[in-house]
Amino acid sequence: MAVEVSSLIPVLHNIATRLRIDSVRSTTAAGSGHPTSCCSAAEIVAALFFHEMRFDPKHPESPDNDRFVLSKGHAAPILYAAWAEAGLFDRSELLKLRQIDSDLEGHPTPRLPFVDVATGSLGQGICAAIGIALDARRTESDCRTYVLLGDGESAEGSVWEAAEIGQYYRLGNLCAITDVNGLGQSRATLWGHDMEAFARRWSAFGWQAIVVDGHDLAALVDAFAAARRATDRPTMILARTIKGKGISFAEGRNGWHGRPLKKGDEEERALAELEAQFVPVERAADRPAPTLIQAPSRRAQRPAGVRPGSLAAPSYRVGDSIATREAYGNALVKLGEADPRIVVLDADVQNSTYSEKFAQVFAGRFYEHFIAEQAMLGAAMGLASRGAIAFPSTFACFLTRAADFIRMASISNLNVKLCGSHAGVSIGEDGPSQMGLEDLAMMRAQPTMTVLYPCDGVSTERLVEEMAYQPGPAYMRTSRPKTPVIYPAEERFPIGGSKVLRQGPDAAVTVVAAGITVFEALKAYDQLEQAGVAVRVIDAYSVQPIDASTLVASARQTRGRVVTVEDHYVNGGLGDAVAQALAGEGMVVHRLAVREIPRSGKPAELLDRFGISASHIVAAVRQLA
Amino acid sequence: MAVEVSSLIPVLHNIATRLRIDSVRSTTAAGSGHPTSCCSAAEIVAALFFHEMRFDPKHPESPDNDRFVLSKGHAAPILYAAWAEAGLFDRSELLKLRQIDSDLEGHPTPRLPFVDVATGSLGQGICAAIGIALDARRTESDCRTYVLLGDGESAEGSVWEAAEIGQYYRLGNLCAITDVNGLGQSRATLWGHDMEAFARRWSAFGWQAIVVDGHDLAALVDAFAAARRATDRPTMILARTIKGKGISFAEGRNGWHGRPLKKGDEEERALAELEAQFVPVERAADRPAPTLIQAPSRRAQRPAGVRPGSLAAPSYRVGDSIATREAYGNALVKLGEADPRIVVLDADVQNSTYSEKFAQVFAGRFYEHFIAEQAMLGAAMGLASRGAIAFPSTFACFLTRAADFIRMASISNLNVKLCGSHAGVSIGEDGPSQMGLEDLAMMRAQPTMTVLYPCDGVSTERLVEEMAYQPGPAYMRTSRPKTPVIYPAEERFPIGGSKVLRQGPDAAVTVVAAGITVFEALKAYDQLEQAGVAVRVIDAYSVQPIDASTLVASARQTRGRVVTVEDHYVNGGLGDAVAQALAGEGMVVHRLAVREIPRSGKPAELLDRFGISASHIVAAVRQLA
Repeated sequence: MAVEVSSLIPVLHNIATRLRIDSVRSTTAAGSGHPTSCCSAAEIVAALFFHEMRFDPKHPESPDNDRFVLSKGHAAPILYAAWAEAGLFDRSELLKLRQIDSDLEGHPTPRLPFVDVATGSLGQGICAAIGIALDARRTESDCRTYVLLGDGESAEGSVWEAAEIGQYYRLGNLCAITDVNGLGQSRATLWGHDMEAFARRWSAFGWQAIVVDGHDLAALVDAFAAARRATDRPTMILARTIKGKGISFAEGRNGWHGRPLKKGDEEERALAELEAQFVPVERAADRPAPTLIQAPSRRAQRPAGVRPGSLAAPSYRVGDSIATREAYGNALVKLGEADPRIVVLDADVQNSTYSEKFAQVFAGRFYEHFIAEQAMLGAAMGLASRGAIAFPSTFACFLTRAADFIRMASISNLNVKLCGSHAGVSIGEDGPSQMGLEDLAMMRAQPTMTVLYPCDGVSTERLVEEMAYQPGPAYMRTSRPKTPVIYPAEERFPIGGSKVLRQGPDAAVTVVAAGITVFEALKAYDQLEQAGVAVRVIDAYSVQPIDASTLVASARQTRGRVVTVEDHYVNGGLGDAVAQALAGEGMVVHRLAVREIPRSGKPAELLDRFGISASHIVAAVRQLA
Repeated sequence: MAVEVSSLIPVLHNIATRLRIDSVRSTTAAGSGHPTSCCSAAEIVAALFFHEMRFDPKHPESPDNDRFVLSKGHAAPILYAAWAEAGLFDRSELLKLRQIDSDLEGHPTPRLPFVDVATGSLGQGICAAIGIALDARRTESDCRTYVLLGDGESAEGSVWEAAEIGQYYRLGNLCAITDVNGLGQSRATLWGHDMEAFARRWSAFGWQAIVVDGHDLAALVDAFAAARRATDRPTMILARTIKGKGISFAEGRNGWHGRPLKKGDEEERALAELEAQFVPVERAADRPAPTLIQAPSRRAQRPAGVRPGSLAAPSYRVGDSIATREAYGNALVKLGEADPRIVVLDADVQNSTYSEKFAQVFAGRFYEHFIAEQAMLGAAMGLASRGAIAFPSTFACFLTRAADFIRMASISNLNVKLCGSHAGVSIGEDGPSQMGLEDLAMMRAQPTMTVLYPCDGVSTERLVEEMAYQPGPAYMRTSRPKTPVIYPAEERFPIGGSKVLRQGPDAAVTVVAAGITVFEALKAYDQLEQAGVAVRVIDAYSVQPIDASTLVASARQTRGRVVTVEDHYVNGGLGDAVAQALAGEGMVVHRLAVREIPRSGKPAELLDRFGISASHIVAAVRQLA
């Protein structure tokens, strides 16, 4: 039962005023924050939350709610104020903003039930919103996705990646709004209030672009309606606003970014001005009638993280030869058959990562992102936030392109399951720009990240299944060359485990390898054995968490002598992981790893040139033994 | 003495054919590579190198040459073929493509004198070209910059960041060309041959957009002339091409990306077809008369890396209080006064990083990049490749946005001097999205990267000078809170050094800290001293290279007991650096670091909550001592 829009406008106006007041009060109480960035968006948020969006204010996690992403995450106080206004929690909570015991943090995180993905690194929210909108389509949900950007944020290339992907997938269920207040942190934005500059860009990228006065509630309501009517493409509402709107001495002035009003006079003046902006409304309309719950969608899926039951054992046999990247593709297909939540994303290298195997069978759950790794990660975050288990795949080196997204996915603790192929110098001739040599460091740095690095087809397949159902973000590193299958199909590979491949009571040194170097270590074992030197060889397929107990036990047996060998730069990878596991033991860890910028060449030549081939392992063992 | 264009066209046509033949022959010889991506660009490269560009083919490094960046780095074989055609080296060298003893690598690197920045990670070359064009303006050089992109590459957001920055700086000296062959690696590109889709976008972003048939040499020559006439904005020439052009069985077909022609029949058929495409030309015009050297520019600067003489000592006095980020800004100004090669870039946080201090004095050498960190890094790479010493600055966490650019800057070994402010949980209330907690891991992973982390104003200023003249990339981590000045102004801080702040013959444990944790370690020292426990405290301001000899000596004195403490996640930072320095010693390293996703709160609360405050150091020492 919709209320007439004309009678709602004054109600929404008063809500916007209350949102401004709450934003001022909470940031002043906190002594930090961005009240002026909230004030410019007050009418936008009021119109969205209390007229346009359909959601249950008592159950923000309901899958049928429309979704809202605050891409300009520094405006968090107005997001919190909106949920208080909607009745989710008491307004007094807002005064705990930014305190260590409150989840109302400086920028939104999914610690809050109404936040799908953490924002605060600009240009990411719109990428996540794409993923959320894609997930609504996947689950045949009618819910719509809204995302609010800042204008300065539009300088981020990721915004334009999202623009391309949004139009490619014709996401009519997505409505973005840019709060064009014309001021960045340090100065005017690139475009100031040149609304046509924005409109030209978004139109050129295939979106419905609508320019409105962002403080005109009726215009905003109309624009949202127009967005609903554009069912074949996403809409960008470009809202011309004033930063600090409603506070005369801050309005449109530079120098007010990220600055709360001072306690005392400054705050009091602002609040007095804002209080004076309330308008009388008819009593019946005082509380708006928004937030209608829509009809339930046809979602009927297992909650994320629940395993549908173990997959059949891999079909590879010991002695077969297959690249781990290809085994990854095969595993995705098996997993996709067993679980409809599995979705896969790629960035125009599906025929290299082998995600194409999944794409060929499950086209509706495969999302091509062309060469836009940031948008791919953002979409994976959005999909995962809504219940999908998302596998974005590309070359390991090109995941660095999305490092900031991986960081935010970790903060959000999402089920984003990354795969980086073509790891290390073992790719050969393409040269250093294509070699993932810092990916383990990047992934291990994130404390919530599981990091896996299988060496053969069987372990790859088993670990793809493990990572799918390990809660939170995970990373699998795959290799380009074919490698022999060394494990029987029934073998299990728990996360946090390792495999002792060679051992003996009289072993002098423990050699820890992973991925491609496992085979160098096995070669070294054979050479050393012929020379009468025994070593232990460990396949550390789980790099994070690493199997500390096995490593410690093994290293003790080899009198504290350990050699690590990895196709990765020396810092942040397997060697450091092993050293950390042994840190309390007073042991000697000798690292073999790539220590300089490599070059083109044949894989075997490069393994040898850069110090990680069997001969280097042999030499290192001989030095220690 | 210009040759008539009309008589040059058949000459250029034959050159294009030779470039195709060389691309086919070299990739077939290598057994890998991207011949079809070269063939689409043959006329573009022929027209550029043998009509449009002004350069000395025997001296590719000459500062007066026009510059060419191959943003689509996988077309490297045609770049090499062009330089062979121009006479820089013998054509027979091309057959060593991708061999370990040849600098003709799979993708271009600055090992070659005609390559300014390594390419091969798509979307970066155009960002670097912006920097090269900015540098030409800085040095008042008339040289022009050309950059060749692929069409698939245009999906990278960094391309649109570059588009914004290029138009903002009105770079009329920059001409980009997109080789629109319609095919990516795995499938058709997002836009195929929809030339208007490209033109709309580039026009909307303020560039002169010119659509041509990319195999029509006369049209290309005209388009380059039109680009020269647009002196107030950059030009994007959108060249419609056919992938594999000239080889009938590969032309415009999917599945030919990154695939050389097979030795034997396949190569022979292709070469026969190409040979048949030569046209007769008048003898006089057989060898074109391009590559005229232009008049020398007004460049008169010291070569990169040469220090103009030591700066005066810092003006801070022991006991003063200043944030290292502010001391960084002050140091930039001093450095800028002493050396005209110093340039500074920021991404709309100049009032947080304090790069604004430099901007206020040297506006002409400060480059605002709004919120576009990738473009900022790319421009820094371009500027550095031409002789500038470039300091791109932003929050440490947002440098992750440009991780792939940092990777490529390392491969290129450029004088890019990064500064990341707001490191760690000590920023306080803004929360995890704004906290740089993986920056040390990211930077340390790059083997050519110097990593510095000063704790006070004096060491910051000294280290800014050190990093400026240390060849290659470097990173400085600065902190948000003010810290006391602890070093006298005359103190020196060589890269690779450290400072032992507290010591005693009976010390039980070595405590290694850096940046903000130095002060926690000093507090812990005082508390422990009162309790009768002596420790050594080391300021490891040079995290990479780290001062292994001092660490080893100190740790031996404390009987192999070491505690590290850092405002960074546990993996990849100071703890790992110290552990690696001590790896051969059989010592016990106890790491204090952030081990989970942090949250908003006051700085002191967070240091304590996340285990890196003085009380945690005291506890760790007591456990070991």
